[in-house]
Amino acid sequence: MNNHFAGPAQTGAGTLRIRASCADRPGLVSALSTALSELGCNIRESSQFSTEPEGGAFFLRLVVDVRPGKADAVHARLAQLAETLDLEYQVWPAARRKRMAVLCSTSDHCVLDLLWRARNDDLAVDIPLVISNHDKLRSAAEHFGVPYHYVPADPENRKRPEAQILDLLRESAVDFVVLARYMQILTDDFLDRARVPVINIHHSLLPAFVGAQPYRRAYERGVKIIGATAHYATPELDAGPIIAQDVEHVGHTDDAATMAKRGKNIERTVLARAVELHVEDRVHVHRNRTIIHV
Amino acid sequence: MNNHFAGPAQTGAGTLRIRASCADRPGLVSALSTALSELGCNIRESSQFSTEPEGGAFFLRLVVDVRPGKADAVHARLAQLAETLDLEYQVWPAARRKRMAVLCSTSDHCVLDLLWRARNDDLAVDIPLVISNHDKLRSAAEHFGVPYHYVPADPENRKRPEAQILDLLRESAVDFVVLARYMQILTDDFLDRARVPVINIHHSLLPAFVGAQPYRRAYERGVKIIGATAHYATPELDAGPIIAQDVEHVGHTDDAATMAKRGKNIERTVLARAVELHVEDRVHVHRNRTIIHV
Amino acid sequence: MNNHFAGPAQTGAGTLRIRASCADRPGLVSALSTALSELGCNIRESSQFSTEPEGGAFFLRLVVDVRPGKADAVHARLAQLAETLDLEYQVWPAARRKRMAVLCSTSDHCVLDLLWRARNDDLAVDIPLVISNHDKLRSAAEHFGVPYHYVPADPENRKRPEAQILDLLRESAVDFVVLARYMQILTDDFLDRARVPVINIHHSLLPAFVGAQPYRRAYERGVKIIGATAHYATPELDAGPIIAQDVEHVGHTDDAATMAKRGKNIERTVLARAVELHVEDRVHVHRNRTIIHV
Amino acid sequence: MNNHFAGPAQTGAGTLRIRASCADRPGLVSALSTALSELGCNIRESSQFSTEPEGGAFFLRLVVDVRPGKADAVHARLAQLAETLDLEYQVWPAARRKRMAVLCSTSDHCVLDLLWRARNDDLAVDIPLVISNHDKLRSAAEHFGVPYHYVPADPENRKRPEAQILDLLRESAVDFVVLARYMQILTDDFLDRARVPVINIHHSLLPAFVGAQPYRRAYERGVKIIGATAHYATPELDAGPIIAQDVEHVGHTDDAATMAKRGKNIERTVLARAVELHVEDRVHVHRNRTIIHV
Repeated sequence: MNNHFAGPAQTGAGTLRIRASCADRPGLVSALSTALSELGCNIRESSQFSTEPEGGAFFLRLVVDVRPGKADAVHARLAQLAETLDLEYQVWPAARRKRMAVLCSTSDHCVLDLLWRARNDDLAVDIPLVISNHDKLRSAAEHFGVPYHYVPADPENRKRPEAQILDLLRESAVDFVVLARYMQILTDDFLDRARVPVINIHHSLLPAFVGAQPYRRAYERGVKIIGATAHYATPELDAGPIIAQDVEHVGHTDDAATMAKRGKNIERTVLARAVELHVEDRVHVHRNRTIIHV
Repeated sequence: MNNHFAGPAQTGAGTLRIRASCADRPGLVSALSTALSELGCNIRESSQFSTEPEGGAFFLRLVVDVRPGKADAVHARLAQLAETLDLEYQVWPAARRKRMAVLCSTSDHCVLDLLWRARNDDLAVDIPLVISNHDKLRSAAEHFGVPYHYVPADPENRKRPEAQILDLLRESAVDFVVLARYMQILTDDFLDRARVPVINIHHSLLPAFVGAQPYRRAYERGVKIIGATAHYATPELDAGPIIAQDVEHVGHTDDAATMAKRGKNIERTVLARAVELHVEDRVHVHRNRTIIHV
Repeated sequence: MNNHFAGPAQTGAGTLRIRASCADRPGLVSALSTALSELGCNIRESSQFSTEPEGGAFFLRLVVDVRPGKADAVHARLAQLAETLDLEYQVWPAARRKRMAVLCSTSDHCVLDLLWRARNDDLAVDIPLVISNHDKLRSAAEHFGVPYHYVPADPENRKRPEAQILDLLRESAVDFVVLARYMQILTDDFLDRARVPVINIHHSLLPAFVGAQPYRRAYERGVKIIGATAHYATPELDAGPIIAQDVEHVGHTDDAATMAKRGKNIERTVLARAVELHVEDRVHVHRNRTIIHV
Repeated sequence: MNNHFAGPAQTGAGTLRIRASCADRPGLVSALSTALSELGCNIRESSQFSTEPEGGAFFLRLVVDVRPGKADAVHARLAQLAETLDLEYQVWPAARRKRMAVLCSTSDHCVLDLLWRARNDDLAVDIPLVISNHDKLRSAAEHFGVPYHYVPADPENRKRPEAQILDLLRESAVDFVVLARYMQILTDDFLDRARVPVINIHHSLLPAFVGAQPYRRAYERGVKIIGATAHYATPELDAGPIIAQDVEHVGHTDDAATMAKRGKNIERTVLARAVELHVEDRVHVHRNRTIIHV
């Protein structure tokens, strides 16, 4: 899907989360687990998936305990194995909280929910900043002790606010970005330059109702079920790899407004679930689909 | 939506189900309930819906007990009220089972489920015939004592098999038709001439994946939820008024084949639910949306 | 169920919500709708339910528009009909927001969610006060501009804090009380003297796991689904009439702590749904079961 | 839970499914995967679970391709490892269909569904026989070509029919038994002597409504959600390890009869899901809870 997943391995010790992928072939698990075992690591969790019984792509997530003093050896060995086995891999120390930027507009339900979960440690993230194209949710963010940056949209020049946002993301050294009902379409250039994953919540069960006003269109189509979808943002609108979805039943007494109200419940829950999966390094992306290691 | 709902009022006594619709205005419920009350009817169930607080369309479903000897008077009074109040209405004796034709192809799960529910009285329908463009499910239908008609598709001339089917429907005096995974697209002309409601089950959560191979496309899009939709068939493919929908969670280990397998569970349940709502006269159609009286 | 539902009729005009119940017999709807129609009222919504086809109990909810100057006549007529028909009834002006007290302990998810929905008008309630047996959530409540009262529990004398709470409820003239994960068991005497409905959220799918530590016990039993239940509080613990329930799938990787975390999503949603149904006067209670007018 | 899971390892080649469990300690995955890799096996699927980060129990499921001529070596090596590592394990050839006996009474929905899925290869099982304490469902079973055995209940002497059933199970060499709404309580002695797993479907969301008439009691309690639970039968009624559960929303218009009707949909689906998990060797039992390898 995009190159920002292939960042350089992070260093660290204690408990490590390792995600690896490569062309499937016999002996992979054995090679990795033996290498880790020889270095005294304990494999706490292991999840693997092959797209095909034979000849497909292979995806592995490991959670391993590394003994004190062994971290460098583990990293060196993984680098060596990656070379030998033609592996793409990432390592993340379980103790290190990911830094998440939240972009929002005027709807507060998703951003408040993320701020609340982060504060309560229901989500293991740090939120160094909230950015919005409106000044409306400042006091909400600041109540949680999170700095709020008002970056107005500029219909004449979308690159200008995007450049500002990119600067803010860089200064805060964020690991990923969440679009919490951020009602601006980001340019391809922004996604390229952000160099970190961007998670979006869309208020429909994609691929139904791509784009604007999904509840209005859901009402007009007379659906009996509405949905919410969290996905990685890609250049094509609402077409990126889906991480999580959920639904809610509606009926003929619901109009677009009450659908929107009911939909808030699933939007915030689905988004939080996707963020949780992401920060726990449970998501692999392959050909615009996600593999979720649970 | 279509004219076959506006058929002539059915006569009968005992318990009647009345559906009525008109432009909303004060005094409607009072006029109807007083009229019925004066004729000694007991209103067992009543459900109403207005599309707008003021100036919208009004939909009413009543279940009333009519005293012996009063049936004609009730029918006459309703006809008179319809005239006065500019009401569209249908009456159906609760004791009269609707006659349902089932059209299928090679998948058996939906048709078997309907046959089984009808036999067990879980669905209050009679099934005078099953029609298929393949000869595959004959023994299944005949095991339930239902005649099976093999009407092969004719890619050169779609009207020919359709004419045969219309003859069969007419001979069996069916009240409605169910497309139980019938893999032929019916012509507008067929829908016009059938003059009875046609219920279709589509194996996606419409409006996602209209048309062919929805599970294949759901897999390719990487969805985490699949769905099924029962709707009234209209000339535009998979675009008719939705009666019922349901969903099932899937994951990255599912491919199109296992999605199709899991989807069978919801397809048959959603279709049966829609048929149940239809045969109990709980569905009103308004501007391509359904009002479900429950 | 309990007498606090049978309070004196509230006066008002504009749009009124009327709930009525009585022994079922022919002519009820006609009598009521004719009376209202004669007074120029427009019946916007009507929902009725009979427990039996014949000889059961009858429950009706109406939403009616009353013309200016007609309010007194409507109230008089209803009182007269209630006398004649042996009707129990309540009237509530749709424009009048119900006043809700929230009782909580240390968990913040339910109380925050209610405060947030009230502020956003997603719930049409006023919250004049939050009461807690801990001083933990003061700043959360005060951030929403709602006074917070710390009433410590007194294990030696449960009546003392209850008396304090009753005083606070009375001073604030609340219409109902919500126990938003309030971890104290209230005495029968409290429920009696409160004289307003009390809604509780229990973190299981009742009647499973009545009482303490439902998630712990759900984990020990190895369930694959957890639930949440909102119900009216009655003297018997977790045994009152159920208003709303919802569930969430869990698995063997979940322990009591992660179940508790996932359960928060449904607890707050189910509680909000129950409060919404209650404030819109959609709930009738009959023999410890609820009739939900939707 | 019970000893019948610890049967002797099955021999076979091609693709093998291996389930293993032991006290958790470092190096387990490495030891197993290296051993299999050295014998030229390809690990297609691997799923593991530890009950605790340290010092808990460890559960592993592997699906491995064994090269021709290597089957004996693999079995020998596994036996040796089991000795060394103090492992409990089972091996099942993926190509070998499990033989399932179905016990039923008068309700047909679960048994028909299993027969239908088996015939369509939606469930990879052979069904050598159906046993019932009524003669009602004979033609249904025989329509699917499955022998039907009528073993009447004997209230005076429960051992007599149980002995007959045990004989039938033994003659048919079944691998497991499914109680598809079999309304007899089996003795502990029967479960002991059957020596194969017994899967039961209970028509409630356990642990709610253990025992008789769960829908009746669900109605009386006024629940808004009903459920179904598939579990391994153990001596204590409805208290065995839960394999799968699902739910359905109900309302005040539902009585015990319509709940029972709606419940059929989830009973058969949940039971089929549990059977599927069991026949694919995806279930481990530990302290009355299941670990589901997916």
